[in-house]
Amino acid sequence: MKAEILATGDEIRSGALVDSNSAYISQELEAAGVEVFRHSCVGDDLDVLVDILKEIGRRADISVVTGGLGPTVDDLSSEAAARALGVELVLDEEALAAIEAWFRSHKRPMSASNRKQAYFPKGARRLDNPLGTAPGFEVQIGRCRFFFLPGVPVEMRRMLAEAVIPRIRQLQGSRHVYRIRSVSTFGYPESVVNEKLAGFEERFADLKLGLRAKFPEIHIRIYGQSDDATTLEARLEEACRWVAGQMGNRLVSLEGKSLESVVGQMLRERKASLAVAESCTGGLIAHHITSVPGSSDYFLLSAVTYANEAKVRLLGVSDDTLASEGAVSEETARQMAEGVRRLSGATYGLSTSGIAGPGGATAEKPVGTVCVGLATPATSFGRRYQFFFNSRGTNKLMFSALALDLLRRELLGKAV
Amino acid sequence: MKAEILATGDEIRSGALVDSNSAYISQELEAAGVEVFRHSCVGDDLDVLVDILKEIGRRADISVVTGGLGPTVDDLSSEAAARALGVELVLDEEALAAIEAWFRSHKRPMSASNRKQAYFPKGARRLDNPLGTAPGFEVQIGRCRFFFLPGVPVEMRRMLAEAVIPRIRQLQGSRHVYRIRSVSTFGYPESVVNEKLAGFEERFADLKLGLRAKFPEIHIRIYGQSDDATTLEARLEEACRWVAGQMGNRLVSLEGKSLESVVGQMLRERKASLAVAESCTGGLIAHHITSVPGSSDYFLLSAVTYANEAKVRLLGVSDDTLASEGAVSEETARQMAEGVRRLSGATYGLSTSGIAGPGGATAEKPVGTVCVGLATPATSFGRRYQFFFNSRGTNKLMFSALALDLLRRELLGKAV
Repeated sequence: MKAEILATGDEIRSGALVDSNSAYISQELEAAGVEVFRHSCVGDDLDVLVDILKEIGRRADISVVTGGLGPTVDDLSSEAAARALGVELVLDEEALAAIEAWFRSHKRPMSASNRKQAYFPKGARRLDNPLGTAPGFEVQIGRCRFFFLPGVPVEMRRMLAEAVIPRIRQLQGSRHVYRIRSVSTFGYPESVVNEKLAGFEERFADLKLGLRAKFPEIHIRIYGQSDDATTLEARLEEACRWVAGQMGNRLVSLEGKSLESVVGQMLRERKASLAVAESCTGGLIAHHITSVPGSSDYFLLSAVTYANEAKVRLLGVSDDTLASEGAVSEETARQMAEGVRRLSGATYGLSTSGIAGPGGATAEKPVGTVCVGLATPATSFGRRYQFFFNSRGTNKLMFSALALDLLRRELLGKAV
Repeated sequence: MKAEILATGDEIRSGALVDSNSAYISQELEAAGVEVFRHSCVGDDLDVLVDILKEIGRRADISVVTGGLGPTVDDLSSEAAARALGVELVLDEEALAAIEAWFRSHKRPMSASNRKQAYFPKGARRLDNPLGTAPGFEVQIGRCRFFFLPGVPVEMRRMLAEAVIPRIRQLQGSRHVYRIRSVSTFGYPESVVNEKLAGFEERFADLKLGLRAKFPEIHIRIYGQSDDATTLEARLEEACRWVAGQMGNRLVSLEGKSLESVVGQMLRERKASLAVAESCTGGLIAHHITSVPGSSDYFLLSAVTYANEAKVRLLGVSDDTLASEGAVSEETARQMAEGVRRLSGATYGLSTSGIAGPGGATAEKPVGTVCVGLATPATSFGRRYQFFFNSRGTNKLMFSALALDLLRRELLGKAV
């Protein structure tokens, strides 16, 4: 089956909003064995909408459309679908009751325009929206089965998973099961990951491989389908293990978890705690660690010591070291890690000091230089790295991941 | 003139990469007075590419195409354009020399496949790429003028600004100048911003208004065009001042700057410094502040005191307060701000303590509760706020902006 994705709305057409829905839908459809061959976006214009629905109706088997289901005059999806089909809009009493119930339970006044959201093209099948007021609908236009979903990502994702994908499987007429596994890696650039994975296709001709960049991590996705779930799971497990072997110590997680999740889990299992001293990463390591719910169980402190004086006063970095080696040095990083470990009483102290740019560079220490320090119950050390990114934001992301990965490798050596 | 945007590449088609280029190009084209009415995306498939180029050639006046200019076999833009036109690909000796020079100056070996990047459809005009190896090109297909640019955002943006927009103005045949102003705001939801700006269209019928959400900031963009640059600048200034008046103290910057940039600039002008104590924001405030180049001039320290013990030991928060009021309280936030100000010797101390979720909530303090503390040379205080977002990430973003905005308002009262 061939699919097209259509994003509607002036916000996306005009560029006020970046359309992240279409990428998400593409991945989910491809994972379900549906080939996505085209995305489009048009604005809130009835004639344009009717035209493109007819056009897709001639070209695709499946189409997922986002946006245009709200209560305002700019929300035209139902009307456009009805016109493309040459049918009337009809009131769906059940949908109306559900909308009324939503407003009652959220204690908000329902406006007359919300009634509009209960009208669908005659013959359409309603798709309930468990998270919002806007129901979607399913309808056939030309040779194509259309699924109209809200543009709000959290609502769209839920309805895609619960209503659209199961329905597509039904339309595919197969009892196939589809599964995706994701393996996260850090440390190889995409070109090297591709090289390392050469041979996958011959070895696992029944599976499909894809990369998803979550800079600076790279997630390797493996898609499979089969009549038999048990066989498929075993096959995917085998493929994941092969991929893991190819990645060596660049493997972060066989379950596609992020560096900060994996490090958090390892700390928790070892009943260990962590404190961080950040200079060039400026709080980004702490932000990543604390993005994991429950991180307060193992994360004690980050001292974002941007000023040298704070490094000395708070962390006990030696004035002599700062004078002789500079703030960006292995020894300063080591002392920062030791200092924050001592200050917090954590099992591990982790630190960064570097030059994210654009300013601050010297001939010896160009933009992209970073020193990472690690203090453990047994020892402490600092290491120096050099990157060549042209952006402060990119450098901060890379430095932060690098530090977390150094800790991850240290923890790997300390089995639970 | 009506424009279409086409993004090419399997990474975008399959959803491995979110297409942010098309939104950017839309905004730049609309700012230049070109109406964008459709975006599309297709993969690296020659037949599909040829078809869509012909299709756009029948529909649009202007099209910007991104991707497919690299050296690999999947990079098909030149070939697809040549086929759509029914012409040959020809070697551009100047382009080849420039590519060779690029590899020499970057001390990298040039592979044979890079020669491919110097071939363009016969009759096309080359568009130089000052930042990379892939030149673009301009060509007429059907009624439409196509501009083929690289997919790498930094290269695309530079070429769009320097080569495409000036050329479009030439094609428009006008000596019009186009200008955009951006006004940043924080504190009103989008619906309220829209209400406050009602009346803009009657007052400034010659200008165009647009909103760009940079959550939780909202940037109001004002577009104008005229034969006379001086008149236009004055008119835009007048409009910005009117918008600023409507926004009141929710105005962040008349130049569209971010909260962290504005706060940084105010601190610098006042020769003041800042230290932060973060709990629920977990380093995000520090990350935002240090995303501004040169922030080391005024930013001394953030103590990300996730553990209560760190709040007590490092910041001197009272055990009694934690026991009686809890970590999430106005008084704890106040003591955290005072503590980090004292610890760092900064002019201002700013703090957050709250519940970002999903865990940690109580009946009295639901997810979305946050207390912000501020310590100044004269006083210190804490304030409590409540939000209703369902996501940890969204809450962290909102809490962080809220704290920066509290400091901004405090600094506003202290003129330089």
